[in-house]
Amino acid sequence: MQRYFGVRKDDKYLYLEKSDYHHIKNVMRNNDGDLIEVVVDNKLYLGCIENVKSDVNVLIEKELEIEEDFIPKVNLIIPILKEQKMDLILQKACEMGVDKITIIPLKRCVVRVDDKKINSKLDRWTRILKEASEQSFRSNIPNIEFVDSINKLSNLDGLKITCSTKKNLENVKMVLKKNKKCDTINVVIGPEGGLDNSEEEILNELGFLSTTFGSRIMRVESVPLFIMSIINYEYMSVD
Amino acid sequence: MQRYFGVRKDDKYLYLEKSDYHHIKNVMRNNDGDLIEVVVDNKLYLGCIENVKSDVNVLIEKELEIEEDFIPKVNLIIPILKEQKMDLILQKACEMGVDKITIIPLKRCVVRVDDKKINSKLDRWTRILKEASEQSFRSNIPNIEFVDSINKLSNLDGLKITCSTKKNLENVKMVLKKNKKCDTINVVIGPEGGLDNSEEEILNELGFLSTTFGSRIMRVESVPLFIMSIINYEYMSVD
Repeated sequence: MQRYFGVRKDDKYLYLEKSDYHHIKNVMRNNDGDLIEVVVDNKLYLGCIENVKSDVNVLIEKELEIEEDFIPKVNLIIPILKEQKMDLILQKACEMGVDKITIIPLKRCVVRVDDKKINSKLDRWTRILKEASEQSFRSNIPNIEFVDSINKLSNLDGLKITCSTKKNLENVKMVLKKNKKCDTINVVIGPEGGLDNSEEEILNELGFLSTTFGSRIMRVESVPLFIMSIINYEYMSVD
Repeated sequence: MQRYFGVRKDDKYLYLEKSDYHHIKNVMRNNDGDLIEVVVDNKLYLGCIENVKSDVNVLIEKELEIEEDFIPKVNLIIPILKEQKMDLILQKACEMGVDKITIIPLKRCVVRVDDKKINSKLDRWTRILKEASEQSFRSNIPNIEFVDSINKLSNLDGLKITCSTKKNLENVKMVLKKNKKCDTINVVIGPEGGLDNSEEEILNELGFLSTTFGSRIMRVESVPLFIMSIINYEYMSVD
């Protein structure tokens, strides 16, 4: 069943976005009486489509239970990358339950975004996150934020780690196991070529622990998928 | 340093493929004296480029030590998917250390490949695996094979699991932990819409254990990345 994010209109009806009505009419080609799922403020509703030929209405049938695996909140802190890589990361991290994406400029970034253009980029990324959330049946949409300097990554709660290429560090498994009860995991992932030494020092001063993700050479866009996968795995129950 | 796969010519020199010489001359724009890494029969050599202006030679400087994390051999058994998804899976699974890819036709596959065309597809996929192996500094290239029926997936050694959507199954973490000493992990991943019931029954009869990968709804191309990530994580040392 297709899932959308909407708002409550009144006791009986839900509102969706204009683009969702278009999707219902012209992409899904739904008929009156078809059922959809709608998430409103972290609640999940079964909705019934009415009046599809003109102004679509979505009647609340009932509230549904949300079934989702528990993982801590994950804040993925990533550099600005080329569009295709960025889209892949947003889509996959969203599927795997990311809570927040923080975009930061880093020294070795190939892509520079003009301050004036960052808002239109954020709009685009937000749209991708919304669509990916619907397709992976999430009950919320991850936040996305631009922070213009790593120095501003202070005041973050929870576990703070960086994906480092340095030798003789604790690996990510040791660190996750030691911090199993944290409620947020903040992970900084560097651009191609990794974090610059001075950046890693600043992050260490801000409380980020440099950790290794193993000896495999992964492309930068694979690292977020790796970290999201292993966090899901670490919190999978074995009882 | 760029890595290539080659063959031994004699005690002093290594041969590369024609396309690699092109890459050295025209993409990397190397000069005489530049160093490259060359893998030959699971051995790693430091090679020195000579004679780049005409017929490139690669002189053996010395043998290097291979540093790679240990994981069991992973045989990813996947349906035929659309080209873009297939390319992503091959590239990422390769980065994360897959040993073998087995392609099978499954009932819910959207893409059908003519028997006559399968060889040219396999050539293309082999090329992608070779390039991904070089870029991720692997010391071998994964095998790829086409098997025309799931009934032929008998006689596989090691752990055999399917990624199932059924309820009340053991999850993949329980199964990996119980079988930590296996030397091969064979994983069947279904197409969009999952494995057909009758297919899952055949696989169960062939000794494949149906397991759940958790409650997240992942796109089909994300599942191989998830499984490769968690296998790497499971075998990461915490000593």
